[in-house]
Amino acid sequence: MKTRIDLNADAGESFGRWRLGHDEALLPLVSSVNVACGWHAGDPAIMRHSVGLARSAGTALGAHPGLPDLAGFGRRALALSPREAADACLYQYGALRGFADAAGVRVTHVKPHGAFYGLTMRNPDVADAVADAVAAVDPEAIVVLLAGPTAERVAARGLRVAREAFADLEYDDEGHIVIEPDPPAKDPQACAEKAAGILRGHVTTRGGRRIEVDADTVCVHGDRPNAVEVATAVRDRIAAEGAALLPMGEVLARRGA
Amino acid sequence: MKTRIDLNADAGESFGRWRLGHDEALLPLVSSVNVACGWHAGDPAIMRHSVGLARSAGTALGAHPGLPDLAGFGRRALALSPREAADACLYQYGALRGFADAAGVRVTHVKPHGAFYGLTMRNPDVADAVADAVAAVDPEAIVVLLAGPTAERVAARGLRVAREAFADLEYDDEGHIVIEPDPPAKDPQACAEKAAGILRGHVTTRGGRRIEVDADTVCVHGDRPNAVEVATAVRDRIAAEGAALLPMGEVLARRGA
Amino acid sequence: MKTRIDLNADAGESFGRWRLGHDEALLPLVSSVNVACGWHAGDPAIMRHSVGLARSAGTALGAHPGLPDLAGFGRRALALSPREAADACLYQYGALRGFADAAGVRVTHVKPHGAFYGLTMRNPDVADAVADAVAAVDPEAIVVLLAGPTAERVAARGLRVAREAFADLEYDDEGHIVIEPDPPAKDPQACAEKAAGILRGHVTTRGGRRIEVDADTVCVHGDRPNAVEVATAVRDRIAAEGAALLPMGEVLARRGA
Amino acid sequence: MKTRIDLNADAGESFGRWRLGHDEALLPLVSSVNVACGWHAGDPAIMRHSVGLARSAGTALGAHPGLPDLAGFGRRALALSPREAADACLYQYGALRGFADAAGVRVTHVKPHGAFYGLTMRNPDVADAVADAVAAVDPEAIVVLLAGPTAERVAARGLRVAREAFADLEYDDEGHIVIEPDPPAKDPQACAEKAAGILRGHVTTRGGRRIEVDADTVCVHGDRPNAVEVATAVRDRIAAEGAALLPMGEVLARRGA
Repeated sequence: MKTRIDLNADAGESFGRWRLGHDEALLPLVSSVNVACGWHAGDPAIMRHSVGLARSAGTALGAHPGLPDLAGFGRRALALSPREAADACLYQYGALRGFADAAGVRVTHVKPHGAFYGLTMRNPDVADAVADAVAAVDPEAIVVLLAGPTAERVAARGLRVAREAFADLEYDDEGHIVIEPDPPAKDPQACAEKAAGILRGHVTTRGGRRIEVDADTVCVHGDRPNAVEVATAVRDRIAAEGAALLPMGEVLARRGA
Repeated sequence: MKTRIDLNADAGESFGRWRLGHDEALLPLVSSVNVACGWHAGDPAIMRHSVGLARSAGTALGAHPGLPDLAGFGRRALALSPREAADACLYQYGALRGFADAAGVRVTHVKPHGAFYGLTMRNPDVADAVADAVAAVDPEAIVVLLAGPTAERVAARGLRVAREAFADLEYDDEGHIVIEPDPPAKDPQACAEKAAGILRGHVTTRGGRRIEVDADTVCVHGDRPNAVEVATAVRDRIAAEGAALLPMGEVLARRGA
Repeated sequence: MKTRIDLNADAGESFGRWRLGHDEALLPLVSSVNVACGWHAGDPAIMRHSVGLARSAGTALGAHPGLPDLAGFGRRALALSPREAADACLYQYGALRGFADAAGVRVTHVKPHGAFYGLTMRNPDVADAVADAVAAVDPEAIVVLLAGPTAERVAARGLRVAREAFADLEYDDEGHIVIEPDPPAKDPQACAEKAAGILRGHVTTRGGRRIEVDADTVCVHGDRPNAVEVATAVRDRIAAEGAALLPMGEVLARRGA
Repeated sequence: MKTRIDLNADAGESFGRWRLGHDEALLPLVSSVNVACGWHAGDPAIMRHSVGLARSAGTALGAHPGLPDLAGFGRRALALSPREAADACLYQYGALRGFADAAGVRVTHVKPHGAFYGLTMRNPDVADAVADAVAAVDPEAIVVLLAGPTAERVAARGLRVAREAFADLEYDDEGHIVIEPDPPAKDPQACAEKAAGILRGHVTTRGGRRIEVDADTVCVHGDRPNAVEVATAVRDRIAAEGAALLPMGEVLARRGA
């Protein structure tokens, strides 16, 4: 049974004239936030605003780099090489650090978005390249990867990895999450139930298989219509289970403790 | 008569499948280089490559943020507000710092490109906003502005400003440079002559007016077909005039000395 | 007193994951619709959907080309040359015709969006170039320009021009409309009042000047929060004034009749 | 033995400030040209210029739609659904028709570019969706697909398909072409030899397998450094073999004759 866990959400996924998400309400509920960096969503004004929100809420700030596909919101697979993936990460992580440095806030972690996350999940060379890129910029920075063999392998290389599990997504029988192009509202209690399972070290797949997960952080999606309700239910359940909600850096620091 | 001056050139202005410039030959000739950051030119792979070139050549590395106009190469005026200009600068400067941090190289300066430079030249509020943004990220970083009243005003506020003059562009009678959408070959000796005038503290405008300039750095454009010949002629002339070629940071440090 | 007028609105201004506007409710209220073409808003899926909506509602379908500035929603001035403006128009008008041809619908008109419209308003050479480009594609197609001297000059050259007035925007004392980056809700009755003035041949400027306008079409903005209420009020007032609501092509055909 | 064949090349693959290809020299050598439509390469000014070149050279004009990936030149696979592929095609084909209509030139065919072509090659549903989209716009227009079972299936549905073979690319043992991200110079005589094989109805794969191809058109890539030499050698060999070089529309019209 986990006694400490991070709860993370994506934010800053508006763009220009278009609004998306519930950032003002959502950020105070989570311990880590992943801010879009302009390629799948987010523009410079929104990135600056999101950094300010994270600072005000005291939420750990992370970069959420995406594939260069604004029209597809970064949720369509694009065949990047490991080198291209690392460069995409350096560019966007750096861009967010520009706003964070100007605001005096640290960027603690990097979590690839959507189909970019899918690339790290299915292609260990991409996961390695992204993790190495993040560490080259800041050895203290954490890369967020799906809890599973790839994440363990990267961690075994001495890199800081937060193993992630999803309270609001389905898993297929290979243990991969099923990315939703346009996330619908979900039952908050079902998500809370899934989070409770994650604290106990398992999730159940679509096909009914129970698989083990060793997670440092649990994700709820910010662009779901009822994202605030889902986050509230998951957060409450984590507290009810007696686990402490901590930024992923603190969860990692005490891992093994 | 100037005894120290920086020579700067733009680089990294290829994009994807398309090549532009003569970076390998040009970088060893100049003391500072301004690397495109993806909005008017430059993609992540090229940015990484350019950072490596600057490191190998020992050239001071700067960011060259542009307007979001790839089809116009950032040379068409876009009406950004000062706030939007600052955000555009933070994003691109940060992105280049991502690659520089990963390679262990410092980004010493920021020089807006093309019509973005034109905005800082014509709108002092934009110049202020850009300079403040750069300083918020790194108080030691230098912002490059056209030598003239705006640059002096920003410097008088205590910010690090490199005053720039152009060896390969014409000046109009207001003392503004005339931005060329597609820079043609120029006579290297005429450019060298202009550089010699700059060392003596003046340039001659299109209309034949002689105006005073107090420059820390001289620019030659990297996307001119004979950029290498122009840079060589200007560099040789600076040496022949007895002035030392130094990165702009050192020129500024000894200014007043 | 006008006895026939067109009422036009912009639509299809969502993009990818982001929704904007009230197209389903708005289109049946207007006689002409201007569909975004991908540069300031609108992606291919949305363009296809918007063409279908216009067909279902029996609304005359027009192209609404914008500047290449998705982050600025095409509302920041970009200095296009007349030739570049014509090319921007041909590209986007053509793209919409692709969807319209596939659906068996005619594109009856072209109305530049936001700061592109501003360019045609302030630079008669741009207005000419755009009007000529539209006519080169389809001599029956109508270009929509601000009612005033430029529109009259283009019409005098034999081109089909719909002179436009705005029920939901302010006019400055030069008779130019004041473009809003992020249109707020407006009082529907005040807009209806303005429409009634337009039917009588005049608008009142910010400074209180009354200027004459000879309009074929009245615009209401689709991205205003209460766009449907505004359009309903304007439409009802046009009817109450005894004027017939007709697509701009029919208004032009009977002009002078 | 084929007695009539089309020779096609891609063109208009410059972008903004960047030049690529040898269009002026290449277009008079081929019977059909495929012009980039802005997504992987080509901007409106270049599209207009390319339409003019095709008209001057008397070369049949086609659209060359790409994936929305300028930085990757449309050569990185992006997972579009059949519907998204059809929309991408309608948008770009329409845009080119805008310039063609303005110039009084017909767009005779549509050939997807790079990884978009790869999608039609590997996913028959995408090939169907693209072919149906083209036919919905213009039933006389031809869609260009890799000679093989998918092309035959689409043709059997009554759509106009030009079956294509490649004189300058390798085939893998599944009969798929191997797309090159950055095509190098190739031996013109080897390409001519391959074209001669295509006229005889076969190509040899990488693995040495001889496969049958029934081709209406042979492609040479315009962005190869020695594209003009390759096209000249292929053209000369076609003549030497006694086959007539004809636009693909005429080849199709006489197919079966």
